[in-house]
Amino acid sequence: MRGWLTADIGGTKLAVAAFDGETLSARLERPTEAARGAGTVLDDLADMLRQCAARAGLTDILGVGVACPGPLSARKGIVYRAPMLGWKDMPLAARLREALQCPVLVENDANAAAYGEYQRGAGQGCESMAYITVSTGVGCGLIVRGEILAGFHEGAGELGHISLEPEGLPCACGRRGCLELYASGTAIGRMTSEVMGLPVSAREAAVLAAGGSAEAQRAFDRAGRGLGRAIGMLQQMLDPECVVLGGSVTQALPLMREALVKTVQKTSYWGERPEEWLRVARLQPDSGLWGAALLARKRWPG
Amino acid sequence: MRGWLTADIGGTKLAVAAFDGETLSARLERPTEAARGAGTVLDDLADMLRQCAARAGLTDILGVGVACPGPLSARKGIVYRAPMLGWKDMPLAARLREALQCPVLVENDANAAAYGEYQRGAGQGCESMAYITVSTGVGCGLIVRGEILAGFHEGAGELGHISLEPEGLPCACGRRGCLELYASGTAIGRMTSEVMGLPVSAREAAVLAAGGSAEAQRAFDRAGRGLGRAIGMLQQMLDPECVVLGGSVTQALPLMREALVKTVQKTSYWGERPEEWLRVARLQPDSGLWGAALLARKRWPG
Repeated sequence: MRGWLTADIGGTKLAVAAFDGETLSARLERPTEAARGAGTVLDDLADMLRQCAARAGLTDILGVGVACPGPLSARKGIVYRAPMLGWKDMPLAARLREALQCPVLVENDANAAAYGEYQRGAGQGCESMAYITVSTGVGCGLIVRGEILAGFHEGAGELGHISLEPEGLPCACGRRGCLELYASGTAIGRMTSEVMGLPVSAREAAVLAAGGSAEAQRAFDRAGRGLGRAIGMLQQMLDPECVVLGGSVTQALPLMREALVKTVQKTSYWGERPEEWLRVARLQPDSGLWGAALLARKRWPG
Repeated sequence: MRGWLTADIGGTKLAVAAFDGETLSARLERPTEAARGAGTVLDDLADMLRQCAARAGLTDILGVGVACPGPLSARKGIVYRAPMLGWKDMPLAARLREALQCPVLVENDANAAAYGEYQRGAGQGCESMAYITVSTGVGCGLIVRGEILAGFHEGAGELGHISLEPEGLPCACGRRGCLELYASGTAIGRMTSEVMGLPVSAREAAVLAAGGSAEAQRAFDRAGRGLGRAIGMLQQMLDPECVVLGGSVTQALPLMREALVKTVQKTSYWGERPEEWLRVARLQPDSGLWGAALLARKRWPG
């Protein structure tokens, strides 16, 4: 059988699947064992992709799409830095091409997820779309006229590091007051921990807030306001038809929604009807797998 | 002779020219007499365009491109609001088409100027570009993959009303802390006047600052920081190859440049080499005329 393979490389797990042009099948998952060395993740991935092809009866692999954390160059197939994977300037596309003997493309994971949601998920039929993923950090992929907006340095959609407060908290990126410091899972955990005086994860903060803790709720309000400001600016600058939210923290969207929507309405011309523009990702946790699969099919239609 | 006509409608003057596909000719200018009624500007414009065609020997008008202040719909050819012209829901394209008996397109003036600079000015050869015009207000046009990024509501590039301080000064748009309140000619005049205790225009503030006035210089620093924050966010979100500055206040760019560049470097990944990405418009004051002419030629190549 002819078809495509797709992979999503995460800091904690690797996922792969086969794609026949219609559906994903033979999905496999494995923990990311970065501690065992930079090459191990790559070997594991190639191994999983071969297994997946065998299970799906894929004898003719037209191409492989790989969603990967960045910064990376999709044009060159190189991952510049992925500390969680122990990678630096990893020629991911070339290495996998060699291992699998078939064409391989690499795409930033937020961009891939954006493309997946645009083609098959919450953004279907939209003229343009912003996908924002909130988990450990904040990622973003933009779709304009049906295609990923890559940017000149392949750096478009760096929403997590727009500076909301140029004199604010220092960020690991070397700048100050970045959105991620207020609106990521990490930030929600940190802000709640600070107030409670003990270490609290974002997930625990969500449980506390849902249970009525005003302290934990304040962290979600703050995250909602931060996301709202970023979305308000995105709308003023790009005016996308819809904004799709994904990532693990989206499960706590009800805790952030009011602050988020109010802030967008205060800061953008197009915030009025959130029921029209605000959407939750529909393909999770497979948005990235879908996007990478569809990108591979687009590039190598066979 | 066959060719195109182009017009740029401003609050203080109307400009028109003929376009043979290579150069603008038979340029005409007239004050905008909005006080004489909403129809007068339109009649004046049609009159000027006819005169211009006659002077250029244009017997076969393939199309007319009109740059106009918004908000407007280029798709529909309707100007929703142009208070300076006394227009509200003016079907500008249809009215001019009727008067001139040839196809007419309308484009937002910042978008038209962006397209002009991209095709023939400071943005030539770029993969993507942001054009920012700073005069009475702040306008912006974005070019992605060679085309104007219109946005879902035709509202992309509303940079003047991104909210830098959601709890800041009230803006005429109904929101707070918009960029225009800190970084327009109007704002520079206002900020200088406040400190000096007497009414000062942006042009006078520039003279004062160039002459060593610390008070006036502070207004330009503040404007530079505001523009820098907006550009930093633009770069993080869109990663354009270059940013082109136009508009009358650009003449005072040397007074703002340091604060602007420093702020971009503090807030964006791509601010490091301003000599590569920061450019001044090259077709001024005709960026809009050029853009509208080129858009008309693109739509009706003849």
